[in-house]
Amino acid sequence: MNIVILGSGNVATLLGTCFLNAGYNISQVWSRNVQHAEALASLLRTQFTDDIHSIDQSADLYIIAVSDDAIEDLVAKLGSFKGIVVHTSGSTSIEIFNNKFENYGVFYPFQTFSKGRDVDFKIIPILLEASNSKSLEILNVFANSISNRVRVCNSEQRKALHIAAVFACNFTNRLYTLAQKLLEDYQLDFDLLRPLISETAQKVQEFMPKEVQTGPAIRNDEKIINSHLKQLETHQTHLAVYKLLTEQIISESSKK
Amino acid sequence: MNIVILGSGNVATLLGTCFLNAGYNISQVWSRNVQHAEALASLLRTQFTDDIHSIDQSADLYIIAVSDDAIEDLVAKLGSFKGIVVHTSGSTSIEIFNNKFENYGVFYPFQTFSKGRDVDFKIIPILLEASNSKSLEILNVFANSISNRVRVCNSEQRKALHIAAVFACNFTNRLYTLAQKLLEDYQLDFDLLRPLISETAQKVQEFMPKEVQTGPAIRNDEKIINSHLKQLETHQTHLAVYKLLTEQIISESSKK
Repeated sequence: MNIVILGSGNVATLLGTCFLNAGYNISQVWSRNVQHAEALASLLRTQFTDDIHSIDQSADLYIIAVSDDAIEDLVAKLGSFKGIVVHTSGSTSIEIFNNKFENYGVFYPFQTFSKGRDVDFKIIPILLEASNSKSLEILNVFANSISNRVRVCNSEQRKALHIAAVFACNFTNRLYTLAQKLLEDYQLDFDLLRPLISETAQKVQEFMPKEVQTGPAIRNDEKIINSHLKQLETHQTHLAVYKLLTEQIISESSKK
Repeated sequence: MNIVILGSGNVATLLGTCFLNAGYNISQVWSRNVQHAEALASLLRTQFTDDIHSIDQSADLYIIAVSDDAIEDLVAKLGSFKGIVVHTSGSTSIEIFNNKFENYGVFYPFQTFSKGRDVDFKIIPILLEASNSKSLEILNVFANSISNRVRVCNSEQRKALHIAAVFACNFTNRLYTLAQKLLEDYQLDFDLLRPLISETAQKVQEFMPKEVQTGPAIRNDEKIINSHLKQLETHQTHLAVYKLLTEQIISESSKK
């Protein structure tokens, strides 16, 4: 089974590496940036190109792992292939392929990727969608060879999952940043917060977050809340977030 | 060295257990609820009482681990002791002791505690404050026997740290809950999010959150943001949080 990787970023690198380690042959790497294509091809022990017309016609799977904005344009420029063409984007519908290929789909690894951090791919959910059942079956085989958590979902569900990830990952990191700034303003080290951050994430590996909400808002502890609001008077950005989230927690717990 | 524990909740239980394991003698447990006092005393292999006038006069350390609201009242009712009296509250000033005792202070273990979850106390920061340098020295010995991360800070810093914890723990769990609800509405399992939540927390164990912000807001990816806002139209609670945090991330990244 031959795989062509289109793209050279974090997702392209991780998926390429995983498939190589799983025993697949990466037949080619394409990137519009030839240096990046070369670097990733060298890592994956394969050929590279930056010419869209030189893409290997005979691969079984084409993985488009470029930025969301670039998918549509790339799809339009690609020739037709017999193999399955997938994109890896959480927020892009399968309809972006517009029936251009015979076999196409979505292969979305659901995780946050950063250069320089190893991730255990086996536990990363992969969300699949395909243009036909035969393609879905083949994608299932590919996905199961690198992950234990393969699910099928439609484009609307995948988008909802992506939004959920914005809350649980991007916005969570934003809260960490607000905490970091507050500590800096009081000459305190962010390191003090790290065990708490770990434990907070660890707790919901076992429990549902709704069941383990703690803090002054869920207790409706007005005395503490007011003293926090007072101390945050000089931190308007923090204050806006504190007020909104506290109000929401109080209002929902009072509905119970 | 003898320790009296006042209170019978999570913090009382955890600190009592840690000190017992570290070789200290817990001479007594007091709680206004005699059943709770008895249960904790049995765990800590010691005496119990619910009578404030029967509290052991000769202990070296009195740990007040009752709810924040109850500290002031309890302090007012206590007799005078020679040992050091500490409370364990993040958001309560040392001034609540009002010079009532000869030796007093704050012994604040900085972590989120839930019944039924074991925590490795050694890595939990303990923040100390004391009425005099001799007491601080003794508290340091106690604290270092159960934790590797002992720091001294004043009441204002401790309160800032507590607010930072509200952001990094309570509000973060709130975001997890919002994500959970969104997934439920689309018939998706929260389990899909768990690896992402872990990785997000894991990443800031190594890096500073400001450096590892990801997502559509930091890229100012208007297309994705607008499509998320549209999908969230039926989720007003989510929408309010999405808008506020996205605006803040965009506005700060544009200032750079």
